Amino acid sequence: MLRSCAARLRTLGAVRGPPGGRRLPGSEPRPALRSFSSEEVILRDYSVPNPSWNKDLRLLFDQFMKKCEDGSWKRLPSYKRIPAEKIQDFKTHLLDPKLMKEEQMSQTQLFTRSFDDGLGFEYVMFYSDVEKRMVCLFQGGPYLEGPPGFVHGGAIATMIDTTVGMCALMAGGVVVTANLNINYKRPIPLCSAVTINSQLDKVEGRKFFVSCNVQSVDEKTLYSEATSTLIPILQTQKLRQTWDLYLGPPGFRSQTSSIRIHYPSVMTNTEVCKGVMVSAGQGTQLS
Amino acid sequence: MLRSCAARLRTLGAVRGPPGGRRLPGSEPRPALRSFSSEEVILRDYSVPNPSWNKDLRLLFDQFMKKCEDGSWKRLPSYKRIPAEKIQDFKTHLLDPKLMKEEQMSQTQLFTRSFDDGLGFEYVMFYSDVEKRMVCLFQGGPYLEGPPGFVHGGAIATMIDTTVGMCALMAGGVVVTANLNINYKRPIPLCSAVTINSQLDKVEGRKFFVSCNVQSVDEKTLYSEATSTLIPILQTQKLRQTWDLYLGPPGFRSQTSSIRIHYPSVMTNTEVCKGVMVSAGQGTQLS
Repeated sequence: MLRSCAARLRTLGAVRGPPGGRRLPGSEPRPALRSFSSEEVILRDYSVPNPSWNKDLRLLFDQFMKKCEDGSWKRLPSYKRIPAEKIQDFKTHLLDPKLMKEEQMSQTQLFTRSFDDGLGFEYVMFYSDVEKRMVCLFQGGPYLEGPPGFVHGGAIATMIDTTVGMCALMAGGVVVTANLNINYKRPIPLCSAVTINSQLDKVEGRKFFVSCNVQSVDEKTLYSEATSTLIPILQTQKLRQTWDLYLGPPGFRSQTSSIRIHYPSVMTNTEVCKGVMVSAGQGTQLS
Repeated sequence: MLRSCAARLRTLGAVRGPPGGRRLPGSEPRPALRSFSSEEVILRDYSVPNPSWNKDLRLLFDQFMKKCEDGSWKRLPSYKRIPAEKIQDFKTHLLDPKLMKEEQMSQTQLFTRSFDDGLGFEYVMFYSDVEKRMVCLFQGGPYLEGPPGFVHGGAIATMIDTTVGMCALMAGGVVVTANLNINYKRPIPLCSAVTINSQLDKVEGRKFFVSCNVQSVDEKTLYSEATSTLIPILQTQKLRQTWDLYLGPPGFRSQTSSIRIHYPSVMTNTEVCKGVMVSAGQGTQLS
């Protein structure tokens, strides 16, 4: 499913700093942020500690930040959304306007960042390019409840999906999840910190195989295990322009060696993107 | 994972009418609801149309309500949560108090009902006891966004998980999901209505096998397919008392022929509930 590629791109674009720090082609320099403005909410990096984070999550965060000092690991910032005017064109072209009212379109938020601080998904991801590993430090807030006092299985699936997707994206390119297979072992208490460890196991043809587990901070409790198969998203010129919005202008992108974006040269598979594209045609030469 | 059994029980308890309509053992009669009170929010049945529902969802709702008239199908109401004082005791006994602050415990909300109207999960479930089928009518709001304009794969997993869980629970008893395997076929546009169809395929030993698909309203587009394995939750006396909170006093429960709660006589498996129980012991005779 084409679930979180945009979310990942949103995050990826952020690896080089907040969107306000770069100019998109044709855009004006961004004004200084005003306190409590909606723009501040949109551009705020949510992958840093806030008062809702418990002691375990803060300790883990500090440990991974130390690992980042020599460049072997990288923290991935993330945002609620990109500014509405930047994605308006994308939505106009790719979505049936009957499906979403203007008001709804302007309200969209990345699912995993759609709760107020501490109530929902509190998380930060770290990536090791050498090991092809993505580690997500996660604390599920009280609005993610399934059984009383425990995180809903769907919320766990959401974080696993997001983590394996980011792992494959960082390792290989813009991908979508085709399969997600989760074995639930034990329930996760609300407001506790856990680590979600994902690893790119192999690449076969167009398929990326990523495995994942969810463990307690002390690694003594295994909460869940999962495997996922992901495939590259195939893009029309329009989609490529959209990725550019997330990733910055080509000149900037080429300077960013740690992000390897995979643009398949010819679109051959309409199956994957059928729900996305207005007209796929016979394929679009991208580069 | 022990994800949504409480959520299901919450819903199940509601099949007989809102919690305010019955007295729990030892409880006082509930005062009349005040407008805009927090109690009203808690006790409100969210499985009915609200202004955010689109035309397709309303039409489907009306169609299924017609099917309910002869009793072959049943609509399942659902709530944000049960009153805090009712689950306080449960949480005190089953959760490490260090993990959750008092304030957080009082804030908990069922994940799938934790958004304001129209922003998140809008859904209603209908069950056919004869066919052992659960159909969920679902519309994903703008806060469930993954790729721009489309529902996040984790949000889809959440609704699939909830639907297969409810299907197994209605068919066989209180269960937890052990495995969830999803094939994502096409992305689901935000704010569009889809149907999630689940079916109990077989029961082998303690295992319930449920299959599921997500389709467009006209049944022409297959968005996702899934299978799930669920197993009965094994209960201590404490847990049984908690289910009683959700399901009502035994006398009331015995009059409700369409809800068959499976209480295994002896708890033999500590694996499933290890994360839940404070002390499992050698098993507790329940009845």
